[in-house]
Amino acid sequence: MVEGELRRLLDTRPLEGELYRPDRLLKAMRHGVLNGGKRLRPFLVLETAALFEATDDTAALRVAAALECIHCYSLVHDDLPAMDDDDLRRGKPTVHRAFDEAAAILAGDSLLTYAFDIVSAPETAMPAEAKITLVNRLARASGMGGMAGGQALDLAAEGSSLSEDETLRLQAMKTGALIRFACEAGAVIGGAQDADIERLGEFGAAIGLAFQLADDLLDLTASSEAMGKATGKDAAAGKATLASLHGIDWTRQQLRGLVAQAEDILEPFGERADTLKQAARFVAERQS
Amino acid sequence: MVEGELRRLLDTRPLEGELYRPDRLLKAMRHGVLNGGKRLRPFLVLETAALFEATDDTAALRVAAALECIHCYSLVHDDLPAMDDDDLRRGKPTVHRAFDEAAAILAGDSLLTYAFDIVSAPETAMPAEAKITLVNRLARASGMGGMAGGQALDLAAEGSSLSEDETLRLQAMKTGALIRFACEAGAVIGGAQDADIERLGEFGAAIGLAFQLADDLLDLTASSEAMGKATGKDAAAGKATLASLHGIDWTRQQLRGLVAQAEDILEPFGERADTLKQAARFVAERQS
Repeated sequence: MVEGELRRLLDTRPLEGELYRPDRLLKAMRHGVLNGGKRLRPFLVLETAALFEATDDTAALRVAAALECIHCYSLVHDDLPAMDDDDLRRGKPTVHRAFDEAAAILAGDSLLTYAFDIVSAPETAMPAEAKITLVNRLARASGMGGMAGGQALDLAAEGSSLSEDETLRLQAMKTGALIRFACEAGAVIGGAQDADIERLGEFGAAIGLAFQLADDLLDLTASSEAMGKATGKDAAAGKATLASLHGIDWTRQQLRGLVAQAEDILEPFGERADTLKQAARFVAERQS
Repeated sequence: MVEGELRRLLDTRPLEGELYRPDRLLKAMRHGVLNGGKRLRPFLVLETAALFEATDDTAALRVAAALECIHCYSLVHDDLPAMDDDDLRRGKPTVHRAFDEAAAILAGDSLLTYAFDIVSAPETAMPAEAKITLVNRLARASGMGGMAGGQALDLAAEGSSLSEDETLRLQAMKTGALIRFACEAGAVIGGAQDADIERLGEFGAAIGLAFQLADDLLDLTASSEAMGKATGKDAAAGKATLASLHGIDWTRQQLRGLVAQAEDILEPFGERADTLKQAARFVAERQS
């Protein structure tokens, strides 16, 4: 469903208020988005929305696709030579390798901008209040105080050593904020009360941390073949991760603890939350 | 007013939902924004809002500042080595020269994201419907079908020759869309009817075109000292502009025609539109 929605959204036809969609830019955007990603964040939006029996699935699907545009823009920019300098992403050339650097910068900018277009568009059937809440939370989760700020801290950390608290903050910003947003967004779309939005936010924070720990663990242990990208990069860049600091056994134990915590948070929702609980385990145990 | 609002918005204190504002990133964002810009777009937002006697000036001021963040992000990214490769902007080092490329990419991303935060924030006192309209129009004016798409077309045009229609479209996207948005935004903030939003949009389109023609003219005629940036770049890059195609006299005549058109559009608003009419003349006649 998400794949189809993204494809539809990245169609060549301009929307009202758009003058023209340049062909090569659109191709670069598609290359950065339609690349076999796991779609974890959209999945979390859809599943948390389903917890609250959101009446209009198409609205949740559009928000899910918008969030994936933000995630993919961040990958396109992070892969740039001036940033992490990666040639491969999921086994395929990164956007700046398949096109060029200017195209990658503009494709990232355009995906970021498009995400806010998608959420705010008349086609997204949702009360204006809910839309504006989503726009604002999405902006805060992805901007200087969230994902982009986390990437800035990550680049600054190369070669220096961060305290454990600084590392946790960096990760809560760089990867945690958007995963947390995904879970809160489903609750907002489903018209949940503030207490439930907060509860889903805590679930998102737990699996966001698990996601990062699993990533650090894979960087320590997995082959670049299984990952479809370079591994061992953290150590090569002189970056200490929580996993490298505390070791593999400690990290696996933390992951089990976070999964248990995530499952506890979902207890009040009963069987309806089974798929989300499975997702928490998937995030912690994934091998690629 | 705009200057003060931008300074306040780029303060170090994180907002609710932001975890932390990294110091160096924030400094790079300030460098890209607090740089002596003309603030034409914010001025247009405030003056068009005043036409409709917008009751809450702080809302207009916040939208004006958000729009300037978008404009400045585009300058920061356009100046990058992979794009226009400029070392100077208004006589000062560009962000990637004063900091580094990664900082410039992330500062641009963060300014773009922050613009949508500012418009959608609870602090922007405006009905949710008006906010969501502004978010959506701003996204369309600045994304792949607007400003970013225009920059993509501009880069692709280097060394090739565009038809006059293609050149007009490129400019309507690259510089026109955001200036048009500025004028529409004031009308939306002021609670104007659709017909008046459309009318102000036409005013914006006329001065957007005048702005671009004046820019092309300055590239042909002005010294880089007066401009605070390199001039003669269009010709050096093999880019034909309308001004270079039709000559200086034709361009000056077109500019006079566009000013007259802009003044006509504002006629129904009487004396209240005097400042906007002056602005149209300023845009057409500016020497830097």
